[in-house]
Amino acid sequence: MSRQRIAILGSGNVATHLSRALSQTADIVQVYSRDITHARMLADALHCPNATDSLANLVTDADIYLMAVSDDAIEQIAAATPDTGIWAHTSGSIALDVLKKHKSRCGVFYPLQTFSRTTEVDFNRVPIFLEGSDPATAEALHTLARQISPIVNSADSRRRRVLHVAAVFACNFTNFMLTQADDILRAEGLDLSILTPLLEVTLDKVRHIAPAEAQTGPARRADYGVIEAHKHMLSGDAADIYDSLSKKIIKRYEQN
Amino acid sequence: MSRQRIAILGSGNVATHLSRALSQTADIVQVYSRDITHARMLADALHCPNATDSLANLVTDADIYLMAVSDDAIEQIAAATPDTGIWAHTSGSIALDVLKKHKSRCGVFYPLQTFSRTTEVDFNRVPIFLEGSDPATAEALHTLARQISPIVNSADSRRRRVLHVAAVFACNFTNFMLTQADDILRAEGLDLSILTPLLEVTLDKVRHIAPAEAQTGPARRADYGVIEAHKHMLSGDAADIYDSLSKKIIKRYEQN
Repeated sequence: MSRQRIAILGSGNVATHLSRALSQTADIVQVYSRDITHARMLADALHCPNATDSLANLVTDADIYLMAVSDDAIEQIAAATPDTGIWAHTSGSIALDVLKKHKSRCGVFYPLQTFSRTTEVDFNRVPIFLEGSDPATAEALHTLARQISPIVNSADSRRRRVLHVAAVFACNFTNFMLTQADDILRAEGLDLSILTPLLEVTLDKVRHIAPAEAQTGPARRADYGVIEAHKHMLSGDAADIYDSLSKKIIKRYEQN
Repeated sequence: MSRQRIAILGSGNVATHLSRALSQTADIVQVYSRDITHARMLADALHCPNATDSLANLVTDADIYLMAVSDDAIEQIAAATPDTGIWAHTSGSIALDVLKKHKSRCGVFYPLQTFSRTTEVDFNRVPIFLEGSDPATAEALHTLARQISPIVNSADSRRRRVLHVAAVFACNFTNFMLTQADDILRAEGLDLSILTPLLEVTLDKVRHIAPAEAQTGPARRADYGVIEAHKHMLSGDAADIYDSLSKKIIKRYEQN
């Protein structure tokens, strides 16, 4: 099979990591960004000669146009582009029907992972959830996805939104809790790495038992003495978070 | 060196896991619990013939009396017991001076880990933080700790409290976020294991970069469209948590 020809729209974290992985087995034929400097930087990194900041200059012969742009921009870009090839966005929260301009051949290519600019991404650990307007489109997206990830699933727009909101709790909010812990430790000259064994076990436990069953800590025991002492050690948002999450944990378990 | 003689006070998760580990290299000579059934169950599991629910019946010849009881009970038990051997509690939040009755030889033996009844504990991953009233007591506690864990550190009462409150964020609140994610996925017939790669990467990232730098997600991008859509999918405490944590993340990064 010949290599798929891919146009990348976007130059942020997702566009960068995804296009770098795809370039191993597909041809990145163009990079679009509304900022030409960003488009050129990413295109250069991919050894792709074609960078543009104009939707009017998009190539017309790509197999797949992959929109790794902000959620707000998807509909507008889709509406302004010619109906050629397969158009797919990479968002967890935007429904497929936003691509109605391209409704005969459109899809979603959603990598469920946290991408940071400064951290390498191992695509062996990036589940990709796909949706296609028709079987041939779905198949083309599956072919592309399987080249970079061993974990490829189908998910319709509703399921993808559920996955995304669950991921916000499991990843984004979890990371924010680690930020609070890091703040507290730094103020005492301690390093977050001191909690590494605890973090590993916290995550290991939920492979075997449900997190609701794995819950421990002062709030789980409704240990108000410790909770009050901790609140007095904290201030600002950390104190607010400690208070409100402790109350919610106490409430959840008060019948048990 | 002869085996240390340990009396265990308590029969909860910490007492159970800790005494089981200690029994490999030390002699558990007695188990006390205010509930004699619990004391007997734990003593039987440790092949220890002596279980009691009476502080008046405590053995007088143990080397170390280890109080793995609820924080509220520590001071009262310490005050009611004879001043013989070393008295140590296992709490992150209770200061050493609560053991003033035993002030000549007292200490703290704090395992910084999450203990659940149904999950095996690998003490190779349990950092133990120690405090002793005097060098000889600290040394005796170090000897005991090193028999079960490779990660043994000293920490005074203030530092221990800081570690404990940081651990509440990093472990207890993190687990509560996973509980929310699990609830959301279950309601759609999905399993939390679908997020395992995301959880692993979330944790791996903070080995290399600070969590404040690793933050991603709709709130980090101040993507109000996604945030509003997500809030509409949620109800009850999950919606409250989503709203309040998103606001705090937006606030933290709004200058960046």
